[in-house]
Amino acid sequence: MAAGLSAASRARRVNPYLEILVYEKGPDISYSACGLPHLVAGVVREADALRVYSPDFFRTSRNIQVLTGHEVTEISPGSRRVTVIPPGGANLQEVHYDRLVLATGAEPARPVVPGIDLSGVFHVNDLQAALALRRHLESERCQTAVIVGGGYIGLEMAEALVACGLRVTMLERSAGLFESVDEDIAAPIEKELADHGVRLINQAPLASLVGDRSGCVRRVTWEKGETEANVVVLATGLRPRVKLAEHAGIQLGVTGAIAVSDRMETSAAAVYAAGDCAEATHVVSGRSVYFPLGTTANKQGRTAGENAAGGRARFAGIVGTAAVKVFALELARTGLSLTQAKEAGFSARAATVRAAEHARYLGGKDIVVKLVADPASGRLLGAQMVGVAGVAKRIDVLATALHARMTVEQVSELDLSYAPPFSTVWDPVLIAAQEMLRELRR
Amino acid sequence: MAAGLSAASRARRVNPYLEILVYEKGPDISYSACGLPHLVAGVVREADALRVYSPDFFRTSRNIQVLTGHEVTEISPGSRRVTVIPPGGANLQEVHYDRLVLATGAEPARPVVPGIDLSGVFHVNDLQAALALRRHLESERCQTAVIVGGGYIGLEMAEALVACGLRVTMLERSAGLFESVDEDIAAPIEKELADHGVRLINQAPLASLVGDRSGCVRRVTWEKGETEANVVVLATGLRPRVKLAEHAGIQLGVTGAIAVSDRMETSAAAVYAAGDCAEATHVVSGRSVYFPLGTTANKQGRTAGENAAGGRARFAGIVGTAAVKVFALELARTGLSLTQAKEAGFSARAATVRAAEHARYLGGKDIVVKLVADPASGRLLGAQMVGVAGVAKRIDVLATALHARMTVEQVSELDLSYAPPFSTVWDPVLIAAQEMLRELRR
Repeated sequence: MAAGLSAASRARRVNPYLEILVYEKGPDISYSACGLPHLVAGVVREADALRVYSPDFFRTSRNIQVLTGHEVTEISPGSRRVTVIPPGGANLQEVHYDRLVLATGAEPARPVVPGIDLSGVFHVNDLQAALALRRHLESERCQTAVIVGGGYIGLEMAEALVACGLRVTMLERSAGLFESVDEDIAAPIEKELADHGVRLINQAPLASLVGDRSGCVRRVTWEKGETEANVVVLATGLRPRVKLAEHAGIQLGVTGAIAVSDRMETSAAAVYAAGDCAEATHVVSGRSVYFPLGTTANKQGRTAGENAAGGRARFAGIVGTAAVKVFALELARTGLSLTQAKEAGFSARAATVRAAEHARYLGGKDIVVKLVADPASGRLLGAQMVGVAGVAKRIDVLATALHARMTVEQVSELDLSYAPPFSTVWDPVLIAAQEMLRELRR
Repeated sequence: MAAGLSAASRARRVNPYLEILVYEKGPDISYSACGLPHLVAGVVREADALRVYSPDFFRTSRNIQVLTGHEVTEISPGSRRVTVIPPGGANLQEVHYDRLVLATGAEPARPVVPGIDLSGVFHVNDLQAALALRRHLESERCQTAVIVGGGYIGLEMAEALVACGLRVTMLERSAGLFESVDEDIAAPIEKELADHGVRLINQAPLASLVGDRSGCVRRVTWEKGETEANVVVLATGLRPRVKLAEHAGIQLGVTGAIAVSDRMETSAAAVYAAGDCAEATHVVSGRSVYFPLGTTANKQGRTAGENAAGGRARFAGIVGTAAVKVFALELARTGLSLTQAKEAGFSARAATVRAAEHARYLGGKDIVVKLVADPASGRLLGAQMVGVAGVAKRIDVLATALHARMTVEQVSELDLSYAPPFSTVWDPVLIAAQEMLRELRR
């Protein structure tokens, strides 16, 4: 919903006279999806704490009609109509639009394996699913959990389930955590998981879920092993919800998400798309990518809303910034990893440093900073960091540098803040840039 | 010494065969000057914790001769010689150089008032002064302190002296703390001081210090008042040490510091200057400024060292980034304040927002972000932030944007990291940029 509500709000700002309707199939709008693991963990006690705005707020404060429980079943770009089933389901409505913004979001990619529909198997991609998981944990007194997938959500769920007192096994289909982070940066996260009792099993694609007589999951198997589980959390990634668009003949991109211009236009006239259903252009590689995150969804929604209301906004694209907290460790990344940079055709090189994130004499701890750069141009291509503190927001310096297409030399010259409680006189980012420069000159 | 040692180390990297001599008048080299308030507070227990490298390290690891206790009394660019008094002072030495780097640093600006030489009056600009202050606090069992000057060092010293159990009065000659921060951003710091029992008196230029019979300070007076004090700390700013350069006919800039090119060349052939004795170019205003900080000193030293050794490095200039912690508050700034921007001839406007620095449902607290921009070009000119956390390193995003000469619109599009423990889905920087855009469009 992030993209849809951003679009609606922006359109309202641009034009106070538009009639703006937002259709939402489910019961909830405007909540922090990224807060769901914290809700499961009980750190956030009430679902309401994650809710940002109510439909009432949109109606009264922004003159936007937000209609929950309304499912759009068809869109007809030719006649500029959508077909809507209101709550109850009786009477189909045909609604005309002048401009349409598709913000259908993403859905969990469900592995096709036996037992996937057993009770006790959850994803945590929306508020209702997270609440159902929490109720299950409480009512079933679960003791063992399997998390399928070692990406951001899987990791956050591992911490949440350990906080709930469960013994957690994490199955990762590939050789290591994170496809978008190089192995050396992911390694400390693997250790952090082990230190907190999480058993991580790499190269273990899910084979089956086995239930008991009551249809409740009891065992999880993969090619080379199996383990008990009272509860299974699927964190196997997202795929764009594109059926509506596809049926309407709207073009999808190579990633399978809706192809959009930098004005968030789709291939259909007067139809925009934004958020987790749409592609984005990666500023570093220049390619269309699928990188579904709330930050991007909000920005794309803003652009789509402005243009749908008659403005002329462009979406600047993404650099692939992401951060996650796993127990006491922070991990952050932006741009291309070394592996991604090579795949994108760069003869990329990397440099890694370990440096204190603030003055050691005030308790500063080391963080690891890895930069990736293009030897031909000297341009920064990406950065990754891991450490106990000072990682997540420090990556933003490098994200900004990527937007500005800075060279590593320019990064090494940045006038960054310093005071002993916050940094060292050479910030780790600057130390990494110097090491990267030396590597490029070799 | 930061600039000098950076220059020497860089020169060694560029050319392994140079003979490199570093003359230091005092007994100490290579320590964290910014750590001195923490040494006074006792948070850092031993001076050695602040020392980074010893002369021995430079000799054995980098083949650089660091000569402490050696005072350079004259430089003669014509004959490429310096005159040095070695420890003991007997025999003047004349030493030839091919290239000379001036890194004479800065000295405390001492107010010219009666009583300034009383015992119990300290500055904290070098290690020996900080240690002397600490000994004085211990031996005299001081109870009341006056800090003269409400800049970064004054604020850090206020916290240090409160930690030592003293009642602290702070005298600030102007109408508010900080010349480089707008009043609205400085206001929370004034409250923070008051909440910790520090009495801040604005518009109170120091008039005199009054001592007892033993020559020890006992009272401090200003135009409209006076107060008791067992100890006085002068935090009245720095001025560049330029006597040597001046006597040698080397040109000073409008700020009174040594004028330098972006290669750190002075007006004299083969003489470079770097660090707190030299000016720097402000990237935003394009003007020469005097902004003595360790971060700049190190970078300028690196440039001077590279060029002195035959390289061709340029110093990119500064954007005036600074951060300070005052009790529980962080304050950070970069670029031009609104006042500074107007002084620099911009018809600048500002926008200020208050936003949570991470998710409120995980305990995130509000920070205040103020941006300054140029309506004509839409360009970002500066930023200031204050809050309990997440301020110091967040300012670096805007410092990087200033280096890249980004518009506010470009800042509003940045792909910054988000996870609930670190940020909100719209980072406060992005919220501020949106508000600034609205202000610019008004």
